Amino acid sequence: MSVITLLTDFGVDDEYVGIMKGVILSLNPAATIVDITHSIDPQDLIQAAYMVESYFKYFPKGTVHVIVVDPGVGSDRAILAFESKGHIFLAPDNGVLTLLFDKKNTGKIVRVDNFDYFLEFVGNTFHGRDIFAPVCAHLSMGLDISRMGAPLDQKDLVRLDIPRPFISNKNDLSGVIVSIDRFGNLITNIDLSIMEAFCRTAKVEKTEIIIGKNSIRGLSAKYDDVKPQKPLAVIGSRGYLEIAVNCGSAREYFSAKKGNIIKVILC
Amino acid sequence: MSVITLLTDFGVDDEYVGIMKGVILSLNPAATIVDITHSIDPQDLIQAAYMVESYFKYFPKGTVHVIVVDPGVGSDRAILAFESKGHIFLAPDNGVLTLLFDKKNTGKIVRVDNFDYFLEFVGNTFHGRDIFAPVCAHLSMGLDISRMGAPLDQKDLVRLDIPRPFISNKNDLSGVIVSIDRFGNLITNIDLSIMEAFCRTAKVEKTEIIIGKNSIRGLSAKYDDVKPQKPLAVIGSRGYLEIAVNCGSAREYFSAKKGNIIKVILC
Amino acid sequence: MSVITLLTDFGVDDEYVGIMKGVILSLNPAATIVDITHSIDPQDLIQAAYMVESYFKYFPKGTVHVIVVDPGVGSDRAILAFESKGHIFLAPDNGVLTLLFDKKNTGKIVRVDNFDYFLEFVGNTFHGRDIFAPVCAHLSMGLDISRMGAPLDQKDLVRLDIPRPFISNKNDLSGVIVSIDRFGNLITNIDLSIMEAFCRTAKVEKTEIIIGKNSIRGLSAKYDDVKPQKPLAVIGSRGYLEIAVNCGSAREYFSAKKGNIIKVILC
Repeated sequence: MSVITLLTDFGVDDEYVGIMKGVILSLNPAATIVDITHSIDPQDLIQAAYMVESYFKYFPKGTVHVIVVDPGVGSDRAILAFESKGHIFLAPDNGVLTLLFDKKNTGKIVRVDNFDYFLEFVGNTFHGRDIFAPVCAHLSMGLDISRMGAPLDQKDLVRLDIPRPFISNKNDLSGVIVSIDRFGNLITNIDLSIMEAFCRTAKVEKTEIIIGKNSIRGLSAKYDDVKPQKPLAVIGSRGYLEIAVNCGSAREYFSAKKGNIIKVILC
Repeated sequence: MSVITLLTDFGVDDEYVGIMKGVILSLNPAATIVDITHSIDPQDLIQAAYMVESYFKYFPKGTVHVIVVDPGVGSDRAILAFESKGHIFLAPDNGVLTLLFDKKNTGKIVRVDNFDYFLEFVGNTFHGRDIFAPVCAHLSMGLDISRMGAPLDQKDLVRLDIPRPFISNKNDLSGVIVSIDRFGNLITNIDLSIMEAFCRTAKVEKTEIIIGKNSIRGLSAKYDDVKPQKPLAVIGSRGYLEIAVNCGSAREYFSAKKGNIIKVILC
Repeated sequence: MSVITLLTDFGVDDEYVGIMKGVILSLNPAATIVDITHSIDPQDLIQAAYMVESYFKYFPKGTVHVIVVDPGVGSDRAILAFESKGHIFLAPDNGVLTLLFDKKNTGKIVRVDNFDYFLEFVGNTFHGRDIFAPVCAHLSMGLDISRMGAPLDQKDLVRLDIPRPFISNKNDLSGVIVSIDRFGNLITNIDLSIMEAFCRTAKVEKTEIIIGKNSIRGLSAKYDDVKPQKPLAVIGSRGYLEIAVNCGSAREYFSAKKGNIIKVILC
């Protein structure tokens, strides 16, 4: 088995993703390639960073996770191979792995610059094809990442300035909406462990969530704890606080956007 | 060989479908996973029901068909495993299998509640990941559906109130548009057998199709039986009456929507 | 290994692509099926023709490339199987292979009409399912294309009237935008060899590119040769002249559309 996941901002209307798969299968015919999504908003590194941290752990050990959200393609930004907890990540050094590092995922990191494993001709506009695809194919066949280049240190890598939730005073935890899914659920950067730290001895269910001029009383366990078309707050499938509307769209209900502030207070 | 098909309303912009595939491949690395579509209008069960009945028969025997259009996730709705004609269907008990049952597909049905085959932690918001994915992986490896839970009876299951074509008087067969495809073809709920029953000894080709204030004379055998940009009626690839425009869009031509009434009369 | 690529205008919202995969896997369970894209503008054969020429060479020898952009489905247009350089192309005889032929890809061509390899029932509206899918499955298992029908001659096939770049006078090379990708990059029909022929002894980097009332001085090697939000011209990943905006969209910057004229002049 060798699984390769692809996360890009290439969209699916052009031939780019298909070409990457052609290069991979030319080198490793046995690869199983899984599309995570190719709809990352062009160059939205924060959205990609949250997503990587969310999906990687559901894949089998040995999976190579390829992330090509790469506004700096062709510049002198490095390409990284990072091995942690049995998973390998191949990504530009632009901060897209920030959340992995924040969540204490440690392991070996190298700068990928051994062109023995690149396509013969490497252009300046499509490293997904010329570098990421052939390198991930080789890694998926068991090649050690140390073959790709010299070691790097986590602390020398680019980090994103990711908005972090904070406790502004004893009764107020502030976060932001970091993504909105197809159902219109508002996914925040407030994870369960921060909620628990904030609530201390109180129960997290006993909080009030403030979005704009609206508020939601308490955390629900599931969508149908409220009536259809009514809003609720839950700890969503990513493990973060989400605001939803049962059988409806919280995006529309609250006219919400990425970046909007969400507050949690104790009742 | 073990093929798994996925039909959901998750869209392809989020990580949800990718995560389901990660869970499946972690359990059954040899699975071949086929996306039918993830663009079901959120929670449009009727659209999904017609689609399932249309595609399943083109897959090899032994295929596990997973349907996660599930507005009731986290509620006490059951999850069903249904085995019929060598195919296995895994779906919420919300009516999405109604057309299969209507078309006389019979077989064993169980309520899926054996958490030995679920992920260790089952949340209330993403059963696609926590239940459907691991269960379908086990079924694709040959586990009998009876291992998943106790038997159920078809007559006790939720049925959709699907609009049915009817013969309103001797000369008038009424149906509705149940879906509109990318080409703008209008797909009705009037299948060939109903057309034939309606026409009795007359030929189905000798009918007139009424859509709003317009009418189409006769059934065509193929799109280019009429000039480009002209409308026609055909028995489409699903086996249902479709209204199309040669090299154009019937949706635009007739300003048509899902739910619009279509009538057939004898000439 | 047997790889099959799919290029269609079916979209991914309907069940059509999934059904083709079901038919393929029923015949060849070991097939690896790669979606190139299903978002070809309905019936835009020129866009499809450029794409085919761009991606096929990145796939392993033996790959079967299936192209179903087929406004003439059900008419008497032929279906072609074309074998060249170790690749097999299965496509309607509507010109979608024109660029392959223009680029001197030669080989055996047959008219696919041996219904032994079709589905048992062939309708008039979905040859992707009834003909292309089963035929490509058989070809992917090593069947010789000559089994599909009688030989044809390249010169007897339908050709598209593809807009060609031309040198209008000694100092002026004219082309058009043939596609625009997700990033808003404007991809022209001017390839590097024409640029070089035009420039003769001058360097291609020393040209000026004219788009509407704007001009771009010189060719860049990579996107970040200019400041963010500034336009540039590069030889893109397809090997054709592209106009881009670093970290932005040239489509928006120039309000550009497919078909717009691009000129190159010597400085």
